[in-house]
Amino acid sequence: MEPKRLYALLRPGNPGIAAQAWRAVHHALVALGIAIMLALTVEDWHATYGEPLSDVFDVIAGFFVLEYVLRLLAAPGAPGAEHRGIWRSRLSWALSFGGIYDLAAAVPGFIAIPDSRAATLIGFIWVFKYVRYSSGLSMLERVITHARQALLSVLLGLVIVLLAAASLAYLLEHHVPQPDGSYAFRSIPAALWWAIVTLTTTGYGDVIPQTVGGRMVAGLVMVCGIMVFALLAGILATGYAEEMRRREFLRTWELVAKVPFFHNLGATLIAEVARLLRARDYPPNAAIVRRGEPGDCMFFVADGEVEIELRPQRLRLGAGSFFGELALLTGAPRNATVTATRTCTLLTLDIVDFFELLGRQPELARVIHEEASRRLGPGTPVHAALKAMIAHDREPAA
Amino acid sequence: MEPKRLYALLRPGNPGIAAQAWRAVHHALVALGIAIMLALTVEDWHATYGEPLSDVFDVIAGFFVLEYVLRLLAAPGAPGAEHRGIWRSRLSWALSFGGIYDLAAAVPGFIAIPDSRAATLIGFIWVFKYVRYSSGLSMLERVITHARQALLSVLLGLVIVLLAAASLAYLLEHHVPQPDGSYAFRSIPAALWWAIVTLTTTGYGDVIPQTVGGRMVAGLVMVCGIMVFALLAGILATGYAEEMRRREFLRTWELVAKVPFFHNLGATLIAEVARLLRARDYPPNAAIVRRGEPGDCMFFVADGEVEIELRPQRLRLGAGSFFGELALLTGAPRNATVTATRTCTLLTLDIVDFFELLGRQPELARVIHEEASRRLGPGTPVHAALKAMIAHDREPAA
Amino acid sequence: MEPKRLYALLRPGNPGIAAQAWRAVHHALVALGIAIMLALTVEDWHATYGEPLSDVFDVIAGFFVLEYVLRLLAAPGAPGAEHRGIWRSRLSWALSFGGIYDLAAAVPGFIAIPDSRAATLIGFIWVFKYVRYSSGLSMLERVITHARQALLSVLLGLVIVLLAAASLAYLLEHHVPQPDGSYAFRSIPAALWWAIVTLTTTGYGDVIPQTVGGRMVAGLVMVCGIMVFALLAGILATGYAEEMRRREFLRTWELVAKVPFFHNLGATLIAEVARLLRARDYPPNAAIVRRGEPGDCMFFVADGEVEIELRPQRLRLGAGSFFGELALLTGAPRNATVTATRTCTLLTLDIVDFFELLGRQPELARVIHEEASRRLGPGTPVHAALKAMIAHDREPAA
Amino acid sequence: MEPKRLYALLRPGNPGIAAQAWRAVHHALVALGIAIMLALTVEDWHATYGEPLSDVFDVIAGFFVLEYVLRLLAAPGAPGAEHRGIWRSRLSWALSFGGIYDLAAAVPGFIAIPDSRAATLIGFIWVFKYVRYSSGLSMLERVITHARQALLSVLLGLVIVLLAAASLAYLLEHHVPQPDGSYAFRSIPAALWWAIVTLTTTGYGDVIPQTVGGRMVAGLVMVCGIMVFALLAGILATGYAEEMRRREFLRTWELVAKVPFFHNLGATLIAEVARLLRARDYPPNAAIVRRGEPGDCMFFVADGEVEIELRPQRLRLGAGSFFGELALLTGAPRNATVTATRTCTLLTLDIVDFFELLGRQPELARVIHEEASRRLGPGTPVHAALKAMIAHDREPAA
Repeated sequence: MEPKRLYALLRPGNPGIAAQAWRAVHHALVALGIAIMLALTVEDWHATYGEPLSDVFDVIAGFFVLEYVLRLLAAPGAPGAEHRGIWRSRLSWALSFGGIYDLAAAVPGFIAIPDSRAATLIGFIWVFKYVRYSSGLSMLERVITHARQALLSVLLGLVIVLLAAASLAYLLEHHVPQPDGSYAFRSIPAALWWAIVTLTTTGYGDVIPQTVGGRMVAGLVMVCGIMVFALLAGILATGYAEEMRRREFLRTWELVAKVPFFHNLGATLIAEVARLLRARDYPPNAAIVRRGEPGDCMFFVADGEVEIELRPQRLRLGAGSFFGELALLTGAPRNATVTATRTCTLLTLDIVDFFELLGRQPELARVIHEEASRRLGPGTPVHAALKAMIAHDREPAA
Repeated sequence: MEPKRLYALLRPGNPGIAAQAWRAVHHALVALGIAIMLALTVEDWHATYGEPLSDVFDVIAGFFVLEYVLRLLAAPGAPGAEHRGIWRSRLSWALSFGGIYDLAAAVPGFIAIPDSRAATLIGFIWVFKYVRYSSGLSMLERVITHARQALLSVLLGLVIVLLAAASLAYLLEHHVPQPDGSYAFRSIPAALWWAIVTLTTTGYGDVIPQTVGGRMVAGLVMVCGIMVFALLAGILATGYAEEMRRREFLRTWELVAKVPFFHNLGATLIAEVARLLRARDYPPNAAIVRRGEPGDCMFFVADGEVEIELRPQRLRLGAGSFFGELALLTGAPRNATVTATRTCTLLTLDIVDFFELLGRQPELARVIHEEASRRLGPGTPVHAALKAMIAHDREPAA
Repeated sequence: MEPKRLYALLRPGNPGIAAQAWRAVHHALVALGIAIMLALTVEDWHATYGEPLSDVFDVIAGFFVLEYVLRLLAAPGAPGAEHRGIWRSRLSWALSFGGIYDLAAAVPGFIAIPDSRAATLIGFIWVFKYVRYSSGLSMLERVITHARQALLSVLLGLVIVLLAAASLAYLLEHHVPQPDGSYAFRSIPAALWWAIVTLTTTGYGDVIPQTVGGRMVAGLVMVCGIMVFALLAGILATGYAEEMRRREFLRTWELVAKVPFFHNLGATLIAEVARLLRARDYPPNAAIVRRGEPGDCMFFVADGEVEIELRPQRLRLGAGSFFGELALLTGAPRNATVTATRTCTLLTLDIVDFFELLGRQPELARVIHEEASRRLGPGTPVHAALKAMIAHDREPAA
Repeated sequence: MEPKRLYALLRPGNPGIAAQAWRAVHHALVALGIAIMLALTVEDWHATYGEPLSDVFDVIAGFFVLEYVLRLLAAPGAPGAEHRGIWRSRLSWALSFGGIYDLAAAVPGFIAIPDSRAATLIGFIWVFKYVRYSSGLSMLERVITHARQALLSVLLGLVIVLLAAASLAYLLEHHVPQPDGSYAFRSIPAALWWAIVTLTTTGYGDVIPQTVGGRMVAGLVMVCGIMVFALLAGILATGYAEEMRRREFLRTWELVAKVPFFHNLGATLIAEVARLLRARDYPPNAAIVRRGEPGDCMFFVADGEVEIELRPQRLRLGAGSFFGELALLTGAPRNATVTATRTCTLLTLDIVDFFELLGRQPELARVIHEEASRRLGPGTPVHAALKAMIAHDREPAA
């Protein structure tokens, strides 16, 4: 198979059947490999089923060697790798983070042949194999990266509280034995164990302050712990909301970019159009557009589903579709009734906002007018306002 | 009783007295049934009061059989079920999620007759009976469904941390005995128990790392635990805020749809009007509108209560009401003073915004004008601006 | 003292010295009373210092009797109580929530005379005395009240998880002894104790599942616990943000209402003006306004402090003040330079936005014009645009 | 070295190599000092390595004495200290919070000479040395300060719950022994220890209610605990989001203030311009601007990176840069194509918004026009609209 097709086969989001089958086998083998790794550490099972389990483990490890080779072969098929030579792109992949990880994941198979237990243990890194296929994790990573500074500050605060708590508890408790006679606060490093267990509100209960002063410090540390928790939650909530807003905009941008007569616009102009979209929620069964009404906006389905009553059949559109786009070009009345089949969110592009934008963006107006002429044919009337705008635009802008 | 009335009787939100009585009996029996189920598992009580409690349990189980039959009979009365035959709509309900659950809830009564304890235990599924009546749970369900992808990513991260922590702790601690001499980290599955108890900061204290390295891993796991917490809180906070905003809009939409002269508008036009509403908060006793002032907007009560001083009596309006709507049609001065009785939130529809919208939506202007003429009668003057707008609208839109 | 002055003395926010002294004594006695109540339950201290502590306790209880009498006397001085008779307003206060609570707080003094320990214990209700003086608690109460429905749904979910977890754990563990030989899962009510301790991630460690199945259920319950936490955090964060926004608006409203020439406006017009305010943050030492610049907006200090360089002295304005208001009336150049002394947030009312509002609100324009004429005297020129607007306003509105 | 240069060297954010080297040494010594302090409290290590560790400890303490002296010498070099005399500015720094802290941090060196263990312990205050260098902590401090009132209310609520829980648990449990025979609820202060451990969901497990009533109270306290958590998270999330928004604005403000032809504007005018900026996200490789397109806005890079294709080389601009600014002055077509190299956020200043602002702010228009004439030279045409505006501005404003 040539690199391009192989690369496509291995690409996480590929909806093809072969790619799905690959993913199913891959995910199942990762799960199985980890399960065997877990099982082999249980003394009884190791004694009874050790041999066959080790064999299966080796087969799975072999599979990851195969995957490594396949990904190495596929490397020249990655987008942007055409300019480089075949071997240079393979080397560059092998040295990338993903390449090194895949190599590490292929290693247990080689070491495990003489059945060393430590090698088996390496199997737990296979769980990271799932990371590549999780689109949500990359989002969380972005959130954490952006809030890095604030998170580090909270961690610094946490370290300060830990040290202060451990020092104070050491001062107050280092001569006081625990109920079992041990001296759990005998040094600050030992007191730090108590402090982290208390600050995170884990509370194992193996070390408990015995003096009144020590218990007051403990109470303060616990309250600090829930404050730290709350601060982290606040920081991550804000970052996540911001990331969602950003993702939302990019999704809107892509929605707009999919409409045929916006295809040729630059990113800024598409962003300009996307900025005009307004989200509106509709209850189930609401009539969004009625046949014969004047067409004054176009719609993008952001969430939910709508039904278009085209005689004789009905058409259902889900998230990512758009309808009513002719309104922007011709201003003709609606030629079908559209109903929300369930609660849904539509983004609307109002013709008034759109023309206002055209008035300010002569470049956009020209592209749209060309598109309209081309699509509608000579017989159909272009929207009067659009025609006027283009005529006006031929004069130099003020 | 015919299916339609029976269906209405059983419908969760029905404010009628018969329906409320039904709900009271239903809720009480669910609570009683669960209480008996709990009590029967206590050895002493079972020995002493087993017989009478079992009898009451059977009666309650019988009630759920009755409820199942009633809901089966009522199925043809559901909205949208008219087209189908009586038996087909019953079968379709019986196979729905609610139908199967109600059947399962009716089962314990049949099994429990020979007093098998396991059957009694099934009674705990009765607690789900309350779900049908809780409007908030459906909202939480929507929030969780929408944040599904991010939540799953966090869970994947959680699994990764768990496996990594358990493997490391196993490596560091599997030869180190606990204080009581047991080997709690003897295998990775055993170490996983420690890891989940620590990561969720539950900290039972039955398994505690004894080496310095193990305690460092434990500290890291605890801090990861509060990060996971915080991430979940952030994700759900964002989703909940978004859901509240959506719900708020739908509520605004419904407020507008209730005003008589907006009745005949389509969903989009109502959404257009709803979008113009602006929330304003008023302190207690603030005069919102004064008799004789020019009428420049209409008001919807979103929260709180206002008092209208109509001579001779006073009228109080709560959430969901509206007032000042004549201002949109006639522009006549206010004929009453309106005061906020406590801190309240009103949504205002400004006449200027409204007319701007009418100018852009000829369809809406026509409907409103017709409504105005019909409601005000020939003698009363329609608002000058409204009249002008309609006249203008007869010419083709630019 | 007459009721009005007495009422003012007792009012929580009163900044007068007498009122502050009263509060200091009150707060100190509440704290002391609770401290004594705590101390009297310690066997040793009760034996040693019981007598003198009890005496002080009685004195404090006596103080609350005095407070009750004072508040009863002050009741007719409350705003809005003038219409009712003296005794009716006292009775109405005595039957209000605050009155009944204050009576309950006065009781321990009477019961405690024979030194009954239970009576002493009632002292803990004194801690609620602080509630009346905490303005933040009323805000939290509003947040919780508004999110009531969602919170109840989460609690219902919590109950469902508890019952399901307890039932499952009972099934799996009721024949398995704990390490100390007891049967902690011997009944569902007993299993519920384990379930709540685990679900809230408290984890005392007195009851721990011993089977693999039971530990899997426990892991699930812990993860559910952090989800419940996160949901609650999300709900309360959203509610709190909403409440802050509301409070912010009311604060803005009050800022505007304090400006002399907005005094006579109704609540709606003030809200209309408040809506025009835009928050702007300034870094420390930034020149906000320079002497001689055209005056194009007025400023309200929302947070921080500014310094006005009036020759010869300098004037500092803190949160709640405003400056530059003459710009709205005369349009004259600034007569002083204003600098931010530290990072501060100002709300600005732009003259252009303000005149746009005046154009739409003839009532407001008239009031402002009258105010301008009155304040500026015949010699000073009124802002040209303002004059024109009033002239225009004399004609009927379109 | 003169105070000014010394001050710059010690300033946290200084990017110079000497300053970075200073910071590296400083941070390393703080970490080492704390590590030694921790190690000296461990009996074994103290016995074996006590002497050399103490010596290093003394050296580090000596370093902090040096730092104190340096900061004292540098004090007259602080901005704003020029007016005061050298000794007055030193005294003022010595009495400031930072000065007193640095003195305290210098103390252990003097006390520790006779090797007193308590003196060594003081070393833990060195951890606060990091605070000065953490920009995020000051932000968190602002968040907590702003939410002070709400946080205190939650703490008051927490105290109320603690007292109520301890009193109730004392009533129900004070005669019931724990499994080990002790009476853990023997007094309310003792019960308070249980209450705080339970309310914060720490759950050491040393004190556990034994009666059914006590366990019900415990369950309630745990649920209250997660509510308190959730409230704190909500409050801090709201405060943090607000603080981020504020910081964002100040950053935007600084972005604008860096553009040459906005240099001479006052803070209000820059804020006015900053308010016009609109954030837009671009996907990787999107063409932001194409050579030859009409220039209709200028861009600020808020996040990410763009590439400008200037023949013959390419130029990359990161966060904080701007481009396309000539569009505001001349309206000439773009002279280069600009592409996003990765997902990035740009702030755009639209020429239409900008001219609208100029129309309202004659002062700004004048400054910009002067700047344009100066920068562009006599040959280049100034933007027609800008020229017109200035001409118009010479007449008195309406």
